[in-house]
Amino acid sequence: MYMNEEISLANGAGGEAYRQMVQEIFIPGYGSPELNQLGDSAVLAGPGGSGELAFTTDSFVVWPLFFPGGDVGSLAVSGTVNDLAVAGAIPRYISVAMIIEAGFPTETLKRITASIAATAERAGVRVVTGDTKVVEHGRADGIYITTSGVGTFDGNWPRPPQQPCAGDALLVSGPLASHGVAVMAAREKLEFEPPLQSDARPLAGLIRSLLDSGLSVHAMRDPTRGGLGATLCEWAEDSGLNLTIKETDLPVKAEVRAACDLLGLDPLFCANEGVVALALPADQAEAAVACLRAHPDGRAARIIGQVSAGLPGQPGHVSVDTGYGTLRRVTLPEGEILPRIC
Amino acid sequence: MYMNEEISLANGAGGEAYRQMVQEIFIPGYGSPELNQLGDSAVLAGPGGSGELAFTTDSFVVWPLFFPGGDVGSLAVSGTVNDLAVAGAIPRYISVAMIIEAGFPTETLKRITASIAATAERAGVRVVTGDTKVVEHGRADGIYITTSGVGTFDGNWPRPPQQPCAGDALLVSGPLASHGVAVMAAREKLEFEPPLQSDARPLAGLIRSLLDSGLSVHAMRDPTRGGLGATLCEWAEDSGLNLTIKETDLPVKAEVRAACDLLGLDPLFCANEGVVALALPADQAEAAVACLRAHPDGRAARIIGQVSAGLPGQPGHVSVDTGYGTLRRVTLPEGEILPRIC
Repeated sequence: MYMNEEISLANGAGGEAYRQMVQEIFIPGYGSPELNQLGDSAVLAGPGGSGELAFTTDSFVVWPLFFPGGDVGSLAVSGTVNDLAVAGAIPRYISVAMIIEAGFPTETLKRITASIAATAERAGVRVVTGDTKVVEHGRADGIYITTSGVGTFDGNWPRPPQQPCAGDALLVSGPLASHGVAVMAAREKLEFEPPLQSDARPLAGLIRSLLDSGLSVHAMRDPTRGGLGATLCEWAEDSGLNLTIKETDLPVKAEVRAACDLLGLDPLFCANEGVVALALPADQAEAAVACLRAHPDGRAARIIGQVSAGLPGQPGHVSVDTGYGTLRRVTLPEGEILPRIC
Repeated sequence: MYMNEEISLANGAGGEAYRQMVQEIFIPGYGSPELNQLGDSAVLAGPGGSGELAFTTDSFVVWPLFFPGGDVGSLAVSGTVNDLAVAGAIPRYISVAMIIEAGFPTETLKRITASIAATAERAGVRVVTGDTKVVEHGRADGIYITTSGVGTFDGNWPRPPQQPCAGDALLVSGPLASHGVAVMAAREKLEFEPPLQSDARPLAGLIRSLLDSGLSVHAMRDPTRGGLGATLCEWAEDSGLNLTIKETDLPVKAEVRAACDLLGLDPLFCANEGVVALALPADQAEAAVACLRAHPDGRAARIIGQVSAGLPGQPGHVSVDTGYGTLRRVTLPEGEILPRIC
């Protein structure tokens, strides 16, 4: 497959077209040892050879700007904080760069600013630098926010190697697809009872309590764009291992599942903004679930599958055990998943 | 003065309206000790109390995307590298976050990517992390790029206190207004002979050679949006000192001055992207000029004015000695300076 002549919405949606753009344009263009890892955060040498740093960036173009459970500001802080936390870093500092469309209401900017402040406080990070540009009316869609973050590796735990191992259990810390479906419902002005709420939240505290417990986390990701499915596909491809998840074990809220059915969405590929996916040795899985559930942001944590050795000479893959005695192969969607979900 | 009910282009242009938005919205909203300094970079404690870090971010919405002497990619790297360098840091790592309009030509994206790579190499930084979002056609203007940067303070020099002192000389490293005027001419499709060239370039090497020389730099800025005039006004206000510059000593290329006359622009308030402004003791000024001129990026360095004590109880201000025996007071423009110049 080759890139099309024009960039399309699919190239921004976190599926196969996104991956291809990164592999064919950015890595050959300005790749570096750190960038080419394609982790949630880059891991950098600190000043004068001192402790390492985590560094990450994300732009947020979510539409609508406000949705049940969050807004572009809380999302921009949560997304960047979570990218630092899943790397095993303690999130410390963030930057906020805004691109605003002329005519944007000043009151709305103040609301978003307040949301950034509240989310940063909850996450234990400080906004230390920023920038604002304004473009003509019609050259943006309200406001776009880019946050970058710096974290330090001075927690009392080893850095997760980000390599699942054969024999690992796969876990998620909470119900899937809530963010993507809540934003889509808000965009389409669909009302559900109970209302769909985004899960957007900073997970620094939850992840810290897990890592502090001394469990050997092998891999940890923040399954945002592309959802849990994209994270698992990347783990399988990078490791050459086979990942199997049990469909009936995937936690999805009833109202989210109903909305997915209505909107024709697969919860496995819908964005999460308040869930961590992890792989760790099977004999530590129950302890990890207990640890996650002890934290308010991990009440619905559960084991969803396991990792096994791949066949020699064959690439790793992801399968879903449907519960009816069949295994369904999962692949990264090629086209558009959900545009402007984050 | 209070903010209007809607954000306007002036709020993004680096003049008084920008300053007001920062003071009335962002600092009360999510201010922090670091953010409230409003420096080109934030200075942060490193991991485990080790050496400090510099951290900065900027969004680039320049139009047109390509202009004589640069493009949005070279500009995005130069701007962020220069913000780190003027803080006295050695630029090390940058992030690149893109917001692309659907339908953007893939070949153009590749050109911009190559320009980012070349400029990063020239500046001695690595692109270590990134993100790309795509928005619908008509919801952006080609491409917007946000770069963030991390630098380390492990150079062989003290960190500039960013405080001009009475008795200091004021210097610039090169001719003024070249970037702003080149972009405006490209936008308006005006042709000049010789053609107007942006000065956009990374100044990490030039600044390093200056700081390495052992001179006592008191303050150093990258006078981008708002130009040299905005930098001087901020120094005067923050320090309470009076800054006087000599109009006939301001280096402006003849073709740039001609274009400013034609476009009705004041070169003092036009953006630079390859110039550093600095204040240091007058008795070190000649040595600093010689040091800057010895570097290819500082050939036109010169002394442009001096700093003197303010009157008790009066705010500091900036004056231009017109060369005809009169002093003209300089104030930050209130309205629109030049939109989308960076």
